[in-house]
Amino acid sequence: MCERNICLTVAYDGTAYHGFQRQANALSIQQVLEDRLGSLFGHTLKIAGAARTDTGVHAHGQVVTFKTTGSIPVSRIPFAAQGVLPTDIVIRKAAVVPAEFHARISAKSKIYYYRIYNNHLADPLLIRYAWHIRRKLDIERMSQSLKHIIGKHDFSAFRATGGATVNPVREMLHAECRQDGDVIECLFHGTGFLYHMVRNLVGTLVNIGIHKLDADAMFHIRESRDRHRAGVTAPAHGLYLKEVYYESGLL
Amino acid sequence: MCERNICLTVAYDGTAYHGFQRQANALSIQQVLEDRLGSLFGHTLKIAGAARTDTGVHAHGQVVTFKTTGSIPVSRIPFAAQGVLPTDIVIRKAAVVPAEFHARISAKSKIYYYRIYNNHLADPLLIRYAWHIRRKLDIERMSQSLKHIIGKHDFSAFRATGGATVNPVREMLHAECRQDGDVIECLFHGTGFLYHMVRNLVGTLVNIGIHKLDADAMFHIRESRDRHRAGVTAPAHGLYLKEVYYESGLL
Repeated sequence: MCERNICLTVAYDGTAYHGFQRQANALSIQQVLEDRLGSLFGHTLKIAGAARTDTGVHAHGQVVTFKTTGSIPVSRIPFAAQGVLPTDIVIRKAAVVPAEFHARISAKSKIYYYRIYNNHLADPLLIRYAWHIRRKLDIERMSQSLKHIIGKHDFSAFRATGGATVNPVREMLHAECRQDGDVIECLFHGTGFLYHMVRNLVGTLVNIGIHKLDADAMFHIRESRDRHRAGVTAPAHGLYLKEVYYESGLL
Repeated sequence: MCERNICLTVAYDGTAYHGFQRQANALSIQQVLEDRLGSLFGHTLKIAGAARTDTGVHAHGQVVTFKTTGSIPVSRIPFAAQGVLPTDIVIRKAAVVPAEFHARISAKSKIYYYRIYNNHLADPLLIRYAWHIRRKLDIERMSQSLKHIIGKHDFSAFRATGGATVNPVREMLHAECRQDGDVIECLFHGTGFLYHMVRNLVGTLVNIGIHKLDADAMFHIRESRDRHRAGVTAPAHGLYLKEVYYESGLL
């Protein structure tokens, strides 16, 4: 049987998993997908993901690709997968793509958003789904600071310390903060992200929002390339991988 | 020390609890509140709740009252309670109320809403927070049907079979369905609710939404007083107790 290259859009609640990437001694999204979909397709699968989301990070539109000789029709995959996957991982779309298409390598840009719950008291329904910030955030000031991260920049100041020595230049296409009642969502659309970059940007945004820093601090911190000047790494459970874009747009 | 009557507004994620009301062999919200707040106030507490939410039902604004001789200032209670309560139960407000005030008996009306996720595929982030309905719901038709439940009526058709033989007449002040993308929320404001009444109304609404019934079926089912003509009992995890109103309004 001829081999097909399959591309899936995957949503998950990251609470129960040790991130996307397969690990030796902890359950990952990748392992569950490879094991469960492997049983569906009838052979061992090697699945590539567009983004390596961390433990506790959620996804609406993670994208994965894999090659298969299995015969299941592509339109049937989302429903068939519901029968083998746990309820916190859902295949939202499936498509056959050209053999050279790769979820990570072919990706042109990604959108993440980060959710903050801003009230002096917690919301028990958002414990696993938003960062609880008690002090009132100045969303105007936070929004103003975002102009300093738009464009192509060295984002070393927002990279995890001890991260791999990859090129720290990334291009941010769009960034904004939206407020709906006590919920603030900060959205980041970039061509690529360094390890912990969104969470470190959000930690810095919160320092700006509580008036510990002014809006232009975002510029000076970025320019300094010094991780120690940026804010704390915001917790993983407020982060969502929203969408991954390819040459043809959204899949 | 003089005895105070304390009124709390409580939010909780009902996922981990066997409902509000204390039970012999299962953990309830009431038990956790009585045990944990009892340790805070330094004596055994007997807590009354405005509504007996079922296993898995959530609350933004459950109201409870209890008498205490403890000396903790009322303004300190929400913060102090965070130190003793699990993260899925949060005291949002606290007030001293007149001695005769009782969370359930003094309540004038309550608002519940029910959340439906309407898409042919599940959303893993709403598994515990919305009822997943795959078939496309006709929200116009659902909304039209709601006029038949507004006002004072015998709601026997929507009462749990085998429920207590209380007077089945209740007054619905307002009801509406709102849509935001794939999420539909049906809101019910009534002076009182029979056991499973909201969930049985929602089961019937869904039958109307999928065109199994027409909008006027809500009238005929209500008039029949026959539980077997109404829809299934919608699952508990889509139901939220939003607010409880008293003579003075919201607390």
